[in-house]
Amino acid sequence: MTIVHPPKPGHALWVYAHPRRDSLNDRLLQAGTKALGQRYEVAVSDLYAEGFDPVLSQRDLGDLAERPGNIAELVGEAYAAGRLPADVREEQAKLAAAELLVLQFPLWWYGPPAILKGWFDRVLTSGFAYGDLDQELGVPRRYGDGGLVGRKALVVVTAGEDERSIGPRGISGDLDSLLFPITHGVLWYVGIEALDLHVVHDADSLGPAEVEREAERLAARVGGVADERPRRFRRLRDGDYAGTRALREDLAPGRTDLGIHLADRD
Amino acid sequence: MTIVHPPKPGHALWVYAHPRRDSLNDRLLQAGTKALGQRYEVAVSDLYAEGFDPVLSQRDLGDLAERPGNIAELVGEAYAAGRLPADVREEQAKLAAAELLVLQFPLWWYGPPAILKGWFDRVLTSGFAYGDLDQELGVPRRYGDGGLVGRKALVVVTAGEDERSIGPRGISGDLDSLLFPITHGVLWYVGIEALDLHVVHDADSLGPAEVEREAERLAARVGGVADERPRRFRRLRDGDYAGTRALREDLAPGRTDLGIHLADRD
Repeated sequence: MTIVHPPKPGHALWVYAHPRRDSLNDRLLQAGTKALGQRYEVAVSDLYAEGFDPVLSQRDLGDLAERPGNIAELVGEAYAAGRLPADVREEQAKLAAAELLVLQFPLWWYGPPAILKGWFDRVLTSGFAYGDLDQELGVPRRYGDGGLVGRKALVVVTAGEDERSIGPRGISGDLDSLLFPITHGVLWYVGIEALDLHVVHDADSLGPAEVEREAERLAARVGGVADERPRRFRRLRDGDYAGTRALREDLAPGRTDLGIHLADRD
Repeated sequence: MTIVHPPKPGHALWVYAHPRRDSLNDRLLQAGTKALGQRYEVAVSDLYAEGFDPVLSQRDLGDLAERPGNIAELVGEAYAAGRLPADVREEQAKLAAAELLVLQFPLWWYGPPAILKGWFDRVLTSGFAYGDLDQELGVPRRYGDGGLVGRKALVVVTAGEDERSIGPRGISGDLDSLLFPITHGVLWYVGIEALDLHVVHDADSLGPAEVEREAERLAARVGGVADERPRRFRRLRDGDYAGTRALREDLAPGRTDLGIHLADRD
């Protein structure tokens, strides 16, 4: 059984995680989905509006709940048996159909709101989003070769801070590093290539005209997204991690920053 | 009104985020809290057992829900008015009392489970955990000077991967960087100094004897934790970020990795 799910051309999924109407994020959602709708058929997962439950729990395991073992493996079994909860199956179907994924959220504590973190925890199950050794590939279906290979993703994030404080040497850490657990740890792991981040800085202090300008900037970005080239991380199968799962010493020698995992930057 | 909450000497809080009994994490919790109990009065927040709701939402705002504005600011107002939901107030009281905080969780998608991420989102409110300009300090109550200053934290994390794959040049990114959003973004921001991570590798494949060895290793670590020196990040008030919120050019020159924010490593 292959775990790869070819996307439907022209389909997109916009996952949205903000609790308030009439907010900057709400405005960005409207502008972004409208612009995207000109080139894609867009499904929206408005996690707050859906009341999405982000807590991966025994409930996800159904009748496997009392079995001993690792929860990720058991969830994979539940997936294989078609026994995952209905809300998870629905999100998986939307994701499987999409060739473009948009994740839109406010930066809370330097990461996604819990409701989005839990969407990763519950929806991206073993057997659906990633898997063990693939005989044909010679590597596990992870790190660029996951079950959702063939997709691109745009991460749209609003941040209260300015460009400098979350820039490369900013006091809060640079945003590309802070979101590496998403762009690499989640997206790349399951096979999805992330485009450059779309960041709205100073999000808490924008006046109405600035909000409109940001809505237009997002619409323009989204309008051209089909032609953008994603950043690419290194793949396991290319041998850069040669057996040890640590980067070969001759590549980006001496460095230990997260940027060493980008394929383009040697 | 000062926002600083002096801890009670000898009090600790252990926050635990794992859904399954009879798991490795369950065993570590038992061993860890027992060992900690020899030197501290230990409160436990077992988030799954409590059914903690991790979704910061309009509900947190009570009668402020319909007011326009930024949710973090409104939550701060609800805190100041003593109107936060009871579960949040209870967690805040436990945290305010503790001089030592332990966060124990399995690494899911290279971060904390959603139920713990949402504990940060909901409990660490403006006015309680951080604040704006403090006239006496001359800087905002953030980055080492937050409302929870005077505390240490131990992060206990179990990971399915081995030491190399989440080590300094590991394919998944090094764990210190992956958890920077917690050790720096959450803990340091609110004033809490994190000790070196306590990591259990290969967590999904440990046999019973290895689980016991890990339980003993954690108990030993916890037993000596009162005498450990925390890692320290740079403080805003020390001038290292000189007005711009970006690290001064003469400090860690040319580097952009997250390690530049550690105070000890120049």
